[in-house]
Amino acid sequence: MSHLAISELLKGKVAVDSQVTIKGWIRTRRDSKAGISFLAVHDGSCFDPIQAVVPNSLNNYDEVTRLTAGCSVSVTGVLVQSAGQGQSYEIQANSVQVLGWVENPDSYPMSAKRHSIEYLREHAHLRPRTNMIGAVTRVRNCLAQAIHRFYHEQGYYWISTPIITASDCEGAGEMFRVSTLDMQNLPRTDKGEIDYSEDFFGKEAFLTVSGQLNGETYASAMSKIYTFGPTFRAENSNTSRHLAEFWMVEPEVAFADLEDIAKLAENMLKYVFKAVLEERRDDMEFFAQRVEKTAITRLEEFVEKDFAQVDYTDAVEILKSCDKKFEYAVEWGVDLQSEHERYLAEEHFKAPVVIKNYPRDIKAFYMRQNEDGKTVAAMDVVAPGIGEIIGGSQREERLDVLDARLDEMGLNKEDYSWYRDLRKYGSVPHSGFGLGFERLVAYVTGMGNVRDVIAFPRTKGSATY
Amino acid sequence: MSHLAISELLKGKVAVDSQVTIKGWIRTRRDSKAGISFLAVHDGSCFDPIQAVVPNSLNNYDEVTRLTAGCSVSVTGVLVQSAGQGQSYEIQANSVQVLGWVENPDSYPMSAKRHSIEYLREHAHLRPRTNMIGAVTRVRNCLAQAIHRFYHEQGYYWISTPIITASDCEGAGEMFRVSTLDMQNLPRTDKGEIDYSEDFFGKEAFLTVSGQLNGETYASAMSKIYTFGPTFRAENSNTSRHLAEFWMVEPEVAFADLEDIAKLAENMLKYVFKAVLEERRDDMEFFAQRVEKTAITRLEEFVEKDFAQVDYTDAVEILKSCDKKFEYAVEWGVDLQSEHERYLAEEHFKAPVVIKNYPRDIKAFYMRQNEDGKTVAAMDVVAPGIGEIIGGSQREERLDVLDARLDEMGLNKEDYSWYRDLRKYGSVPHSGFGLGFERLVAYVTGMGNVRDVIAFPRTKGSATY
Repeated sequence: MSHLAISELLKGKVAVDSQVTIKGWIRTRRDSKAGISFLAVHDGSCFDPIQAVVPNSLNNYDEVTRLTAGCSVSVTGVLVQSAGQGQSYEIQANSVQVLGWVENPDSYPMSAKRHSIEYLREHAHLRPRTNMIGAVTRVRNCLAQAIHRFYHEQGYYWISTPIITASDCEGAGEMFRVSTLDMQNLPRTDKGEIDYSEDFFGKEAFLTVSGQLNGETYASAMSKIYTFGPTFRAENSNTSRHLAEFWMVEPEVAFADLEDIAKLAENMLKYVFKAVLEERRDDMEFFAQRVEKTAITRLEEFVEKDFAQVDYTDAVEILKSCDKKFEYAVEWGVDLQSEHERYLAEEHFKAPVVIKNYPRDIKAFYMRQNEDGKTVAAMDVVAPGIGEIIGGSQREERLDVLDARLDEMGLNKEDYSWYRDLRKYGSVPHSGFGLGFERLVAYVTGMGNVRDVIAFPRTKGSATY
Repeated sequence: MSHLAISELLKGKVAVDSQVTIKGWIRTRRDSKAGISFLAVHDGSCFDPIQAVVPNSLNNYDEVTRLTAGCSVSVTGVLVQSAGQGQSYEIQANSVQVLGWVENPDSYPMSAKRHSIEYLREHAHLRPRTNMIGAVTRVRNCLAQAIHRFYHEQGYYWISTPIITASDCEGAGEMFRVSTLDMQNLPRTDKGEIDYSEDFFGKEAFLTVSGQLNGETYASAMSKIYTFGPTFRAENSNTSRHLAEFWMVEPEVAFADLEDIAKLAENMLKYVFKAVLEERRDDMEFFAQRVEKTAITRLEEFVEKDFAQVDYTDAVEILKSCDKKFEYAVEWGVDLQSEHERYLAEEHFKAPVVIKNYPRDIKAFYMRQNEDGKTVAAMDVVAPGIGEIIGGSQREERLDVLDARLDEMGLNKEDYSWYRDLRKYGSVPHSGFGLGFERLVAYVTGMGNVRDVIAFPRTKGSATY
């Protein structure tokens, strides 16, 4: 490919007066009375388009004057410094080749006018052509790359835990079934029940809701691992924070306690936010101007401030004794609501806060029981402007305590035999957490709905494209 | 965490005579008559364990002499250069803390003796503790990180194309159904058919077999994208090369033709192989010694040699005129078998080879038709020692040609309306390919079966853990 990315030109990486070729799509066209056309061309490589100045001396200048938003072109010309405002460089074109026209420009779904976010969602295959979704795509990529880089630099191994699971220990209530059975002619046992032994995997299978339990097996051998993969919830939650299919980052660390992973969460978030501030300034400026005016400043504050830490028990006292009226009352033993978490982060601590040691009765079986007999070594990271962003815990590494908890919760120990093996054979203290990737991207960009930060969102009633 | 990774100590990153703590699992223990025990401790951070030399002066020396393979320990002591063969540094321990015992060492599934690969597969939750699967895990991670790095450095954006798809255009024959319908009481229409409007997504939904078509939508806006995510095939293929769930890397590049992506494939493979040779020498030496003796040399040759290129039509002539007896006869128009591909790479060209321009009748509808009317701009990358490793094509960007092909194949244009939109609005020449990640890891490590290079393999009849 002999053409250059527009980002390279705008960053000044190419010598002025060079002959260059760029390829991209028309954002706007303006014609002067003097017989010159100005094309704004974007190629996705950065937020800004580059301006191509096209003289009417070109053979196909009549074609140029018919270019509309979305047409694809190849432009060759001389790179010059721009006299125009808001642009550093432009191209004095000596050739414009039209690669693809837009059929019926008047009905082009991504015409230059501003579209509602809901309209864009209904045209998910074309919306990355807009300024907004283009910027989301670059920031999302920047965050994903920074996450991989962060863990790799610290000696973690990326593990792909299974997507399809036949494990009985994930709580099948909100799971999607995976099957190849003929729905019209389901095989049945003598008792009239569906015969899943005939199904592809020889038993019932579902889409995973978390890689954690599998991740623990690898942490119990490789010490430091993380997953970054899709997870699924068949929840009927029609909110701006829920997707049926979303990506999760789940580190799992041997020889680490709750303090260690609280620190890991803080280090990771600061690392990836710094990466966005350094690498995607152009897109972040757009979000700050058009989407959420604190988009940049709140990230800058986030990376500068130490996280606060508070015990759940103390947090409850803070919430009970403050002047704020909450919709949901707070008592020791109840799970904190979003309004409580945000009060703690935004008004009380005025910083991201790690809430630790929750009541055992509201938490999962695998969390490590504290000495007080009432709480478990769980933590949530709560951030100003979003609320809970990370949830994690130290895992119960003591077989007898784990078994007692399984019994207490009416869970079948045989279903957890491989998980219990980790406690039988060289068990180690270990901890981990989960980060919902789309919530992270929504927070960083200020986009109000996770459906707009994943390419093709899947929600109740919707799986188009 | 105050302990250090064993890899840091063995690489000489810590000053000799420092007091250090490491945490890990016992690989072996040997006691000398002089009252000294030698513990080989591994923590997953590198191939080699570190030796801890434990004098009988320790208070809990009786515990130390009961340590067996798999027990977890914390060892503190002085780092010294080792006089022993095959190890650079060791620890003169002044404290050994036992973190976790192995219940019934005699029946520990990962005891120190050598286990068959099939046995390890049946203990997938414990097998990363072995030398072999530990090495696979590190090399797999190295390859994944290098893939992300390669694309990121070149200005590609990672896109997460959907896992669940209700799109009709993927060919549902070999797909897994995703559903939340109550299998015991399936809703039915008046006509007695299953009423999928009652299902979670309001229609039939499946697990994706490829992110390509979705990826094309983003390449048609961002120019250069890639996917790296799980894909699924409900095939009853009980071979060493097939998984029901596997990870794919699929770059899609606007303004790129077949030559461009053939070059991209070559550059990418060489980049990631170099990363393995540089970063995971320890593991690769193990594979060369114990799994596939050419494991290192064939990678070294791969990165040094230019790829050969041959047209399918010429390849058929080579195969027809050579002396080799093939199981399957070759004629123009048939798809090449693995034996043919390997002959071309291993015996004829003695290099990785790109086979280009296949007969259109054996290829997918989206591949770009060549001027000859008989072939399409498809390519396969075939490597010595493995056969096909990458398949790709230039995509048909001309709406009229695409539509004629859909008609010819009896496909419904309405099912492809969003895909066709890309050709209506600023269509551009573009190309891409797919790489099966597990096949890549299997090739690099020399492991004979893709089930042993993914943590928890899913195959017909098997989805345990």
